Amino acid sequence: MADAQINRQILLVSRPQGEASVSNFKLVETPLAPLAEGEVRVRNHYLSLDPYMRGRMDDAKSYAAPQPLNEVMIGGTVGVVTESRNAAFKAGDSVVGMFGWQEYGTSDGRGLNKVDASHVPLSAYLGAVGMPGVTAWYGLNRIIEPKAGETVAVSAASGAVGSVVGQLAKAAGCRVVGIAGGAEKCRYVVDTLGFDACVDYKASKLHDDLKVAAPNGIDGYFENVGGEVLDAVLARMNAFGRIALCGMISGYDGAPLPLKAPRFLLTQRLKLQGFIVSEHMEVWPQALKELGERVASKKLHFRESIAEGLDNAPEAFLGLLRGKNFGKQLVKLV
Amino acid sequence: MADAQINRQILLVSRPQGEASVSNFKLVETPLAPLAEGEVRVRNHYLSLDPYMRGRMDDAKSYAAPQPLNEVMIGGTVGVVTESRNAAFKAGDSVVGMFGWQEYGTSDGRGLNKVDASHVPLSAYLGAVGMPGVTAWYGLNRIIEPKAGETVAVSAASGAVGSVVGQLAKAAGCRVVGIAGGAEKCRYVVDTLGFDACVDYKASKLHDDLKVAAPNGIDGYFENVGGEVLDAVLARMNAFGRIALCGMISGYDGAPLPLKAPRFLLTQRLKLQGFIVSEHMEVWPQALKELGERVASKKLHFRESIAEGLDNAPEAFLGLLRGKNFGKQLVKLV
Repeated sequence: MADAQINRQILLVSRPQGEASVSNFKLVETPLAPLAEGEVRVRNHYLSLDPYMRGRMDDAKSYAAPQPLNEVMIGGTVGVVTESRNAAFKAGDSVVGMFGWQEYGTSDGRGLNKVDASHVPLSAYLGAVGMPGVTAWYGLNRIIEPKAGETVAVSAASGAVGSVVGQLAKAAGCRVVGIAGGAEKCRYVVDTLGFDACVDYKASKLHDDLKVAAPNGIDGYFENVGGEVLDAVLARMNAFGRIALCGMISGYDGAPLPLKAPRFLLTQRLKLQGFIVSEHMEVWPQALKELGERVASKKLHFRESIAEGLDNAPEAFLGLLRGKNFGKQLVKLV
Repeated sequence: MADAQINRQILLVSRPQGEASVSNFKLVETPLAPLAEGEVRVRNHYLSLDPYMRGRMDDAKSYAAPQPLNEVMIGGTVGVVTESRNAAFKAGDSVVGMFGWQEYGTSDGRGLNKVDASHVPLSAYLGAVGMPGVTAWYGLNRIIEPKAGETVAVSAASGAVGSVVGQLAKAAGCRVVGIAGGAEKCRYVVDTLGFDACVDYKASKLHDDLKVAAPNGIDGYFENVGGEVLDAVLARMNAFGRIALCGMISGYDGAPLPLKAPRFLLTQRLKLQGFIVSEHMEVWPQALKELGERVASKKLHFRESIAEGLDNAPEAFLGLLRGKNFGKQLVKLV
């Protein structure tokens, strides 16, 4: 009998005290069991790294159960079927799933979706045509509900979610203002993604720069960051503005951040709504169809930061929490 | 020719630096001009004192223009027509209007509404069947949208707005939890208004007491207070909870208060919406009809704190900002 094939996996082995670190993770090698009847095996090509994973590392009240210790870290993956004993899949099929931080995934087919990698690159199903894209679509269309001529702002504007928010808002006829960290990201947001303006939050004059970038105030805001960025935007919101609260990454890895002036929510009669895209599955088909068409026709641009190899996943994930990525953060597994 | 009748008025003569004080106001006596054709004169019986007035005293960006200096302070009034040269009104008519802090009002009829004081006491048109009542109605029915069996909480629960919120929510089949300052107010909220529970925010164990009062968490919250009360309630909100942000009185008179943990808005996928009832005039007829019927049939209870005489209006207003009133704060002018 041949040796069993080896699967490399990353487990969460401890919870962060304050900042997350590479020591919270551990790489293990596990032999793959032979496929049972009805099962399908996938070689994962890309692993998605996303801010929500930081929340799962804690044992705190949140919208999802914590990631169990000593199990494979949760995560979205795309890959190709290598072997199938399930009639719905055959070797060579491209599939998107939630196999987590590991090279191989085995499934009975549930939670696994075949995708067409001929017009849209496989990795995009973890980004613009995946969960981040639908997140952008939902927050923009179902919470902000932008009208042509309004000003829409988005933080983490060069990221997987923010870049889609801004391009969709631009297509809806809005003035679009990005907020990103550093001159290089800001240039990309304006020159490549086509935003009207981008403010560098690291330039230490966020209030003034926002005033210039959004001279008529802000009607819709898509929030990924929280903290002082949210404070600055709140002060520029117009009456009856809408805020889609998707993330607050600046407070994930350490002490939670306060909101300095909640009074603006009242004085400007704002609507602020937190959401999690996985609770709105009803919009996914429509959103994915629209996003896929836009990517295939080159009307929706995106950029990826790709870490090479599973070993580098923890370091890449910590970098994501600090904004070191530029565009969608992936780990290439083949 | 007889001496002109004297009207006593209170003007705003300076803006607060930090806390408001009686020195910001000044009582003046002004002779009344004879009525012109088309005008109507009203002897005001009650002046309404409301938290929003504090915002008008400042010269800051808000939803309304600041109160101009050296003019009569803004305010809702009810009274009786003493003289009319306007066909729509006759002497003896009971009317509600916005004559401000003064004993007499003169109007061309605009903004003046005749009310029926036979089934509903005149003063109630400044409270449960007036702006505060409609405020409660709007925030509850249009933002919180309570479902039977849910838990609804409201701060300043014994006040003009909060008392109506809770009674309407109770009528809608909810568990209703009040938050008020002091044991006496809490007893009233439960025993007279019929709330299921009331938490005394002055008892210094708001978090624990809320847990007991709302064992299943809070689905809808009507906020009048802000500050640490909002912090405590946020931590008890259930997923998909709704917060109607009506006021943040704890931060009006001094430094604005931060929100300690905005992350709950995200983790619990809350909707928070600020509103001003005067921007939703379309609901007033329906709301006033329902509120008037409930008061007339004794199904809606309310309580009033009545200061005697215009001279005492500034002191009563400052007391309102500190929660010294018990129920709707009025000034009796006759």
